[in-house]
Amino acid sequence: MSQAAAATDLIAALQRHFPADALITKPEDMTAYSYDGTPMLKGMPSAVVFPTTTEEVATVLRLATESGTSVSTRGSGTGLSAGSIPNAGDIVLCLARMNQILELDTANLTILVEPGVINANVAAAVEAEGLFYPPDPGSMRVSTIGGNVAENSGGLRGLKYGITRDYVMGLEVVLPTGETFFTGTKCVKDVAGYSLKDLFVGSEGTLGVVTKILLKLLPKPAARKTLLAIYEKMDEAAATVSAIIANKIIPCTAEFMDRTTIKCVEDYAHIGLPLDCDAVLILESDGHPAAVDDEAQKMEALCKQHGARSVKLAADLEEATKLMTARRMAIPAMARVAPTTILEDATVPRSRLAEMVRFVQKTAEKYNIQVGTFGHFGDGNLHPLFLANELKPDEIHRVHEAVGEIFDHAVKIGGTISGEHGIGLTKKAYLPGAIGELNVRVLKELKRVFDPKGILNPGKIFEADQPGMEGTATFTHTITRGITPEHLIPQT
Amino acid sequence: MSQAAAATDLIAALQRHFPADALITKPEDMTAYSYDGTPMLKGMPSAVVFPTTTEEVATVLRLATESGTSVSTRGSGTGLSAGSIPNAGDIVLCLARMNQILELDTANLTILVEPGVINANVAAAVEAEGLFYPPDPGSMRVSTIGGNVAENSGGLRGLKYGITRDYVMGLEVVLPTGETFFTGTKCVKDVAGYSLKDLFVGSEGTLGVVTKILLKLLPKPAARKTLLAIYEKMDEAAATVSAIIANKIIPCTAEFMDRTTIKCVEDYAHIGLPLDCDAVLILESDGHPAAVDDEAQKMEALCKQHGARSVKLAADLEEATKLMTARRMAIPAMARVAPTTILEDATVPRSRLAEMVRFVQKTAEKYNIQVGTFGHFGDGNLHPLFLANELKPDEIHRVHEAVGEIFDHAVKIGGTISGEHGIGLTKKAYLPGAIGELNVRVLKELKRVFDPKGILNPGKIFEADQPGMEGTATFTHTITRGITPEHLIPQT
Repeated sequence: MSQAAAATDLIAALQRHFPADALITKPEDMTAYSYDGTPMLKGMPSAVVFPTTTEEVATVLRLATESGTSVSTRGSGTGLSAGSIPNAGDIVLCLARMNQILELDTANLTILVEPGVINANVAAAVEAEGLFYPPDPGSMRVSTIGGNVAENSGGLRGLKYGITRDYVMGLEVVLPTGETFFTGTKCVKDVAGYSLKDLFVGSEGTLGVVTKILLKLLPKPAARKTLLAIYEKMDEAAATVSAIIANKIIPCTAEFMDRTTIKCVEDYAHIGLPLDCDAVLILESDGHPAAVDDEAQKMEALCKQHGARSVKLAADLEEATKLMTARRMAIPAMARVAPTTILEDATVPRSRLAEMVRFVQKTAEKYNIQVGTFGHFGDGNLHPLFLANELKPDEIHRVHEAVGEIFDHAVKIGGTISGEHGIGLTKKAYLPGAIGELNVRVLKELKRVFDPKGILNPGKIFEADQPGMEGTATFTHTITRGITPEHLIPQT
Repeated sequence: MSQAAAATDLIAALQRHFPADALITKPEDMTAYSYDGTPMLKGMPSAVVFPTTTEEVATVLRLATESGTSVSTRGSGTGLSAGSIPNAGDIVLCLARMNQILELDTANLTILVEPGVINANVAAAVEAEGLFYPPDPGSMRVSTIGGNVAENSGGLRGLKYGITRDYVMGLEVVLPTGETFFTGTKCVKDVAGYSLKDLFVGSEGTLGVVTKILLKLLPKPAARKTLLAIYEKMDEAAATVSAIIANKIIPCTAEFMDRTTIKCVEDYAHIGLPLDCDAVLILESDGHPAAVDDEAQKMEALCKQHGARSVKLAADLEEATKLMTARRMAIPAMARVAPTTILEDATVPRSRLAEMVRFVQKTAEKYNIQVGTFGHFGDGNLHPLFLANELKPDEIHRVHEAVGEIFDHAVKIGGTISGEHGIGLTKKAYLPGAIGELNVRVLKELKRVFDPKGILNPGKIFEADQPGMEGTATFTHTITRGITPEHLIPQT
């Protein structure tokens, strides 16, 4: 049976299991599910199904396995590496309706949620109990916890509080056979067998479908102080962050923006950022009030010692929120200035960040493209955002060339090609260079353990090598070396 | 070729690669490598080899693979689940001589070490720079970091600071083929592919041999305060810990000892513990001095509110160290009272710990055996230590029956059969009951990816199912349901 015929049979089978409002198959309805937050890429599925229970997820996977049709799982579709863009003809498994908070256990400091719960809703629910869920990806008001787990999302608090992985205590997972298991417990210590949950965190929908998530919580920090420091030179900002850490302070956030980013944010938000500086640092301390006072004072002094032109302590929570919001506005502010914004997340050891920011600027000049860089100074996670126009293929090509050089340099100085966005489609060509051919071979063999027929999000992270699963993707554009010419169709 | 002939050939090959002082083959020299910290079990290897480089490890594994001889890797041999006891005829790969600290990076807060470095030596090296490596297993003065990684060791600071896994940023691993790779970076955020390092942490020597370890460090907490609270009832101690957490305080340690443990420790160490109480709690706060003062005061008040007969704040660091040392003495103190001590590490969600301690006491009474329970209240990790005599097979049998019931109950109330000691040989029969048959099947398939011939520590965690690798173990005794009769040889 041809792939198309198999997909038709599968849709008929799905129609027997799902009501009309939980299964869409018309192209005009499915357009919204043909792309994610990654620019210039899309793939039209053959159906989008909205399960509400683990059993329904198992049914979809079992039927897809029987028909040999591949499945792309998604939440809100905010991904930035095309990890949730379906291959043409895929079944899209959208978990947005599995959005219940199942249990908030204040004695054991855990919360059990379905994958479709929005990150910010988890944060709000636990805050109401005086608790704290630290991972705060930029997309937190839109992105789902299931997506955060699939991508191992980071955020602004990575240095002090870690990333999504550090908070996942257990997962319910459905395998392509429809078999379901739970891995993990509410115990901080649990060494019963290899850590399966850690394999699923960051697996980008390629190993199984996560249907329940048990998260660890912390007490909410009692106090918080936020500082804004303005620098003539990015290197002074870098020296400040190094000095803060050398003084045994781990700020909960240490964000930076470069000149281009500052200009875009100020033009957009009018919060009084100076337009003639090279860098701003936004530093935040949280915890016990006395510790926070002390840390904020020390950080202020260190900013001045290391050349800050001015340092401003936010007077109150409102002003602090305004400063952090300014940083969070970087992407929309920059999106206003160019039709196409290409955001990367190369990450380097903290001590190499200033050097890496310079490398990004030099590389952008070399290729005559505009870039603004911002990101998380404390954890070396920088976000170069290229301002381009997808209608100018030559400009896009130059962005790709620049991105390639940036990735290569990040790896060369001990970093990685992705700090928090995942590999997906857009970075898979760079993966062997980053982690080595042997590691990639091992990843592929691990996938085969869980997904021997290769039906789960094939072609993401690495090339699919299962017969019948390769080459089903059609995309509107190439973004990196990763996507081969046969995937390209003319821009519509 | 028979297994014995293959082993003889392998030893001849090893002799060509290793000098005489790095390879021992005489039974009298190998006795020390035939057991670990687990009572009543041993297995005589055919050779013990002491590599000093990654290349030498690769040579051993390559030769072992060629000869089809299995390899058991060990450090100091402090394991408590027989994970580092060789099967009869195994090559023991002892990494104790790979004990160099390779790099301490104070800017990026990392340390790169060889696997044979003792945990306490890492702690001391980083403390000299004002830094902190939190995982502190009871064995920290003896056990190696390599062993800590293999077992994903915990310690007294698990609740606030997590366990070994939370500090592993990268690993160099040698596969059975001799192929070597590094996985991980110095970046806090790195999502380039599945997290291989997390698969190796806690894999008990069954997937590969770890030859370099990159660890995350923290700034050393500036202050610490330690409290000792005495209770008439274990439930009051439990209520105190719950109240502390409900008050948004996460103590860095919350240790407890029950009546039997207190008596043994006091008889041994004479530090003035009362003999007529049911429980003591040792609570520690660390961090910023003002925060520590405040937390210690609040914890003291909460102890009193919840029924503590007395609460004592350690006057200074010396007194605090004495209190923590008393708790760390529990095992040697109890080892004095009985010829054979069998230590378990069933772990339950924190809210169920008092109930679990009662269950342990009731079960010990039912089987007419002596037990003292101590452990980590904050993370639900309890250590029932059974006082027995291996020369009385009936008594040992009753201990095993009790342990089985305790494991079953821990799992029933949402816990796990091992919080920090690993599965090894002694708990593998309980693993399917704890994590499910499907999970165990997945673990076995994952092992096959890395170790298709099954030469790495076969029979640990789960039964070996590779032909030629099963049933090579000979042990002096059974400790659980896990070891089948053919493995038993009469006690010598």
